[in-house]
Amino acid sequence: MKKIDEYTEEELVYLQNKLLKEYAHFKNKHLHLDMSRGKPSSQQLDRSNGILRVLDSYETEDGIDARNYGVLDGIPEAKRLFSDLLRIPDANIIIGGNSSLNLMYDTMTRFMLFGSLGSTPWCKLPKVKWLCPSPGYDRHFSVTESMGIEMIPVPMTEDGPDMEVVEKLVAKDELIKGMWCVPLYSNPQGICYSAETIDRMCSMETAAEDFRIMWDNAYGVHDIYEKIRLKDIFVTAKKFHHKDRIMYFFSTSKITFPGAGVALIAASKRNIAEIKKHMSVQTIGYDKLNQLRHVKYFGTADGIRAHMQELAKDLRPKFDVVLKTLEREIGDSGFATWMEPKGGYFISVDTLPGCAKETVALAKEAGVILTAAGATYPYGNDPHDSNIRIAPSYPTVEELAQAMNLFCLCVKLAGVTNLLEI
Amino acid sequence: MKKIDEYTEEELVYLQNKLLKEYAHFKNKHLHLDMSRGKPSSQQLDRSNGILRVLDSYETEDGIDARNYGVLDGIPEAKRLFSDLLRIPDANIIIGGNSSLNLMYDTMTRFMLFGSLGSTPWCKLPKVKWLCPSPGYDRHFSVTESMGIEMIPVPMTEDGPDMEVVEKLVAKDELIKGMWCVPLYSNPQGICYSAETIDRMCSMETAAEDFRIMWDNAYGVHDIYEKIRLKDIFVTAKKFHHKDRIMYFFSTSKITFPGAGVALIAASKRNIAEIKKHMSVQTIGYDKLNQLRHVKYFGTADGIRAHMQELAKDLRPKFDVVLKTLEREIGDSGFATWMEPKGGYFISVDTLPGCAKETVALAKEAGVILTAAGATYPYGNDPHDSNIRIAPSYPTVEELAQAMNLFCLCVKLAGVTNLLEI
Repeated sequence: MKKIDEYTEEELVYLQNKLLKEYAHFKNKHLHLDMSRGKPSSQQLDRSNGILRVLDSYETEDGIDARNYGVLDGIPEAKRLFSDLLRIPDANIIIGGNSSLNLMYDTMTRFMLFGSLGSTPWCKLPKVKWLCPSPGYDRHFSVTESMGIEMIPVPMTEDGPDMEVVEKLVAKDELIKGMWCVPLYSNPQGICYSAETIDRMCSMETAAEDFRIMWDNAYGVHDIYEKIRLKDIFVTAKKFHHKDRIMYFFSTSKITFPGAGVALIAASKRNIAEIKKHMSVQTIGYDKLNQLRHVKYFGTADGIRAHMQELAKDLRPKFDVVLKTLEREIGDSGFATWMEPKGGYFISVDTLPGCAKETVALAKEAGVILTAAGATYPYGNDPHDSNIRIAPSYPTVEELAQAMNLFCLCVKLAGVTNLLEI
Repeated sequence: MKKIDEYTEEELVYLQNKLLKEYAHFKNKHLHLDMSRGKPSSQQLDRSNGILRVLDSYETEDGIDARNYGVLDGIPEAKRLFSDLLRIPDANIIIGGNSSLNLMYDTMTRFMLFGSLGSTPWCKLPKVKWLCPSPGYDRHFSVTESMGIEMIPVPMTEDGPDMEVVEKLVAKDELIKGMWCVPLYSNPQGICYSAETIDRMCSMETAAEDFRIMWDNAYGVHDIYEKIRLKDIFVTAKKFHHKDRIMYFFSTSKITFPGAGVALIAASKRNIAEIKKHMSVQTIGYDKLNQLRHVKYFGTADGIRAHMQELAKDLRPKFDVVLKTLEREIGDSGFATWMEPKGGYFISVDTLPGCAKETVALAKEAGVILTAAGATYPYGNDPHDSNIRIAPSYPTVEELAQAMNLFCLCVKLAGVTNLLEI
């Protein structure tokens, strides 16, 4: 494929005109598609409908009536199910409500108001700073931003956050209190943290005694092409004597139903004890019937794994069409680069610098909604204006094919226009 | 009935011996009963089992798939259901998760971290104080205590909190930021706030601009003997130009299932906008399928009202046996006084001063668990050591009859022992 630096000025003008014609043609199709959020399709949700009819009794295995008050940290069979699935001891797991984001928010709130394991409440400090591997998950960034925490972007490498940068920053600045991580099939790039990255995160010395890694394993069992598993974060953290550093989150939002699933937090013994102390004031406990539904529906961790293979069958053709269209329409031209994730929910595309906002605007004008350009960076500020997150889960394969043709056209049109600008 | 001040010393000794014999007899029965929490009985929960089988479709009335992401503040039909039930405009309602306590905790957390409608975040103030009408709900007090808020007890009258005391305190101290209220069938006394009390709460001038009334209408439709309705809090607050003062909470914990019900917060337009802003960062939204279950099961507000009448039929004989046993065993002797609630979940008994702890301890030794003495006061500190909360909802009528015989015996035994002490 012809590379952008091989075009003459004249050829670029010609290409621009050609792309503009194609774009006008697309606009006439009046598309109406949303690829902005990592939202499961109705077809995917249908695969979990059985969970709504599975409750025939209400007693937990230890004889608690799941319909009544009682049990703060999750019914034992639900803890065991996720313990088996994630290979975390059940004593280190608390089953929460319907949203892991909410558990993360609550965790940050507690750090702000109460500190962690005896440290000064962060709201009493003159300033708190936070590392944000970027591109990353916009809703993580919203949480830290809303609490007035200064966010410091850290570049991503194909092995995870750039640990050279991370180590240098955390070693000297005690106001840096933690970092966001989506370690497996990262949002949006689909990067899986390497064993070395995890070793370095767990072993690095931090100026802040209460430095915390918010380990959002959102896609922990969400393989699409391959089954990738991370180095065990708790075992590694323990080895390096930093086991209190890890706050681990997971949910079934993209296993059963977003909003009607089950979320969990896992942490060291001391952290779990502290969280339970606060939770016992915060709530009467979470929805045990929904926990029981999940246990009865899946039975075992293998039940969940089999279910995820079914979901992957639906998602694979969607990822295929995105990746194949990018390859066919953009290829090695240089108009954009991207990664090929092996799982998760997103594909991340980097346009030419200064072209992401324009690409998203062009697509929107032609009826395809993408995640806002910049959203993958703290404060919505992508310094190169180049990163765009594609969420292929919701549309059908046919819709995606159309949307991706348009998307690639917009990438090139924005690119060529940018190149021609004086 | 013979009154305590009519007893001679000799008669008291005789009575004590008689009671000790009866107590020994009770201990041989090896009772094992729990009247500590306002927990529905299994029989009551059975009346809502149908709600678990009611979901046959997943679409909300505005075409949202309730199984998927989307909708922060509640599906429209759920808002309307509770709007009709509580006579609050649906625009002023946010449907939350499964626990109104959690909504209150979140609300307090927001005040601490962000302030309210532009005020200074409370965590930035040197001190925050809070009014706690007492006896009151122990879990309210735990929330304020956990946040380091200084709690000031305010006496209860039969019309609600003593407004003379409240008005004087809030007028001069700008660090007093709010108060807890359970306005209908208060926990534990079953007191219903009078129209005058509500008028004064809504009209009083407060030194703190961001003074907030946490209006926990936990028993808003939980009539047992009579149907009592409060003066409309929002209309009243609006009339006196203090509509931002009210944060209103409600849940179906004691309508359907504790822990698997639906909770809500209602507030002024400005407050709702601010809460939504924070919630949009905090969570992906609450469980819409459970909201839909409640709508489909009850249909209308009248459906809920009819259901509550059924529940009242179960609860009435339980309240009857508690009140009748108190009347028969203690009557006007002076060993204790109590109120006769018309609804709610509790009966509050005041023993002779200095006798509540001993009464609870005696009951426990004989196998009946009561709410810890003092729990109904801030910091667990009942200055007179006299208030005991009785929760009759969980045991059967037969069990209650036994437990109440024991309870009255313990009240008298603790009383007479106290009177004989030198």
